[in-house]
Amino acid sequence: MNFDLLVFGTGSATPVINRHPSAFLLSIENESFLIDCGEGTQYRLIEQKVKSSRIRHIFISHLHGDHYFGLIGLLSSWSLNQRKENLTIFAPRGLDEILTAQFKHSETRLNYKINFVETDTENAYHILETNFVTVETIPLHHRIPCCGFLFRSKTSKRKIVAEKLPENFSIPYLKMLKEGLDIHDELSGITYKNEDYTVAGGVSKSFAYCSDTVYNELKISQLQNVNAIYHEATFIDSELKRAEQTNHSTARQAAMIAQKSKAQQLIIGHYSSRYKTLNNHLSEAQEVFENTLLAEEGKSYKI
Amino acid sequence: MNFDLLVFGTGSATPVINRHPSAFLLSIENESFLIDCGEGTQYRLIEQKVKSSRIRHIFISHLHGDHYFGLIGLLSSWSLNQRKENLTIFAPRGLDEILTAQFKHSETRLNYKINFVETDTENAYHILETNFVTVETIPLHHRIPCCGFLFRSKTSKRKIVAEKLPENFSIPYLKMLKEGLDIHDELSGITYKNEDYTVAGGVSKSFAYCSDTVYNELKISQLQNVNAIYHEATFIDSELKRAEQTNHSTARQAAMIAQKSKAQQLIIGHYSSRYKTLNNHLSEAQEVFENTLLAEEGKSYKI
Repeated sequence: MNFDLLVFGTGSATPVINRHPSAFLLSIENESFLIDCGEGTQYRLIEQKVKSSRIRHIFISHLHGDHYFGLIGLLSSWSLNQRKENLTIFAPRGLDEILTAQFKHSETRLNYKINFVETDTENAYHILETNFVTVETIPLHHRIPCCGFLFRSKTSKRKIVAEKLPENFSIPYLKMLKEGLDIHDELSGITYKNEDYTVAGGVSKSFAYCSDTVYNELKISQLQNVNAIYHEATFIDSELKRAEQTNHSTARQAAMIAQKSKAQQLIIGHYSSRYKTLNNHLSEAQEVFENTLLAEEGKSYKI
Repeated sequence: MNFDLLVFGTGSATPVINRHPSAFLLSIENESFLIDCGEGTQYRLIEQKVKSSRIRHIFISHLHGDHYFGLIGLLSSWSLNQRKENLTIFAPRGLDEILTAQFKHSETRLNYKINFVETDTENAYHILETNFVTVETIPLHHRIPCCGFLFRSKTSKRKIVAEKLPENFSIPYLKMLKEGLDIHDELSGITYKNEDYTVAGGVSKSFAYCSDTVYNELKISQLQNVNAIYHEATFIDSELKRAEQTNHSTARQAAMIAQKSKAQQLIIGHYSSRYKTLNNHLSEAQEVFENTLLAEEGKSYKI
């Protein structure tokens, strides 16, 4: 099962050339999830040739502009381009009001339906289950209501070894085998042991998206043994005071979260415009948590 | 007096790579006017090294996204960058509501003051006078309320020829000379003839910004003898029906407006994403009005 994170934006609020605001595409099997949507995200999707019809869910962590100002343009363009697929948007209270005002004054009627789901950013809870994925919120601690999102691919069902099956094996029995059940056929009196006909399915993977937040260990219990964490690292430790004042994290703090969560991998991003190079971010984080990667725009990360 | 139009965006509503949505900077003397502000305009301003503090007035023609979705990002970034200069925004009804909702939910308090001025898009009327410029609205005919803007630089006052002046000439007298007055000094009995001490000031120039509109000759009387017109040319004449259906113009129609207005120069833009090259736009317009130029992004046009 593929499970990939494509990075569109590594910048923070103050705009700089060559760094875009936050936006990420998580692809799991044939489902794609857009996470945050800073200004210009629609152009990043075109550049990366992303098939927009696969995106049925958008997750907005909070309503600071560098995390959602690109949403209205994307939604409008999808309608111009005759999108038909319904869309669900998860976001804190307020987004619906903002988008509705924009559609009203442009007299826009979308070709597709949007289902707005208001997130409760103060509690960790289950918000979505699709064919391949479950999603929980991660409460974060920023200047305005903000949450992250924890994606877990489902353990796929057991896989049938076709060549071992009897001919004309009934479809209801196939479904039972995929569920891991043994089968006793009353008519023939034969028992089919599951282990004789199937092998184990894929294992579950998990990815935690931790958007803007001051350092806070409360989320660590929720993130235990996660495969990968994206965590903001707006600053490095020499600007720790500034990080605390603005409710952001340093690279070292992001690494501490990954270490204490026993994560396998950490990806850091959301770099302040003051940093022209990111060597210090990387070395500072790697001192605490070795398997740290810098988020780079246009790059895809296998989880 | 400099009078230059810098083009940031030549695209229309459907996004394409290498064409940005509408945004223009008109610079007259030391005043800069931002006209429309499609998504990503703040990045174009940085690329072109525009001094943002010079922009005290923004003009939004209408509330279709390709003309204003970049505004909220620009306004937010200016505040992050400690802008202090007050700003006046001219736009149709609705923009204030949209921006206010966005500032509310991000808990943003700008460092500077915005004065929203709602445009009446149905009448041509005077909306602004600054040191160097007067501005009128141009009623346009689109799917939602929309107007253009007619900028006229003021005729500058007469210029004093310093070397001809007597020594210690009084400042009130200098002001009178600039106004074109003769001066009779009662004490000395001397009369200073204005023509002996001054030469003519600069002549007035004018520029008409005609944003999204179906072909309509009503504006021609207002635009008589204008120095330059920017006019949308979303389509070429082979798509005339589509132009009419969507309330847009073709290149030939833009040229007809310029010709009937006896303009000196026409700049066309707002090209539909269907056109990969623009030779047909240019040749079609030039058949009607020879002095037509294609708007090109990043290029500055002397008016």
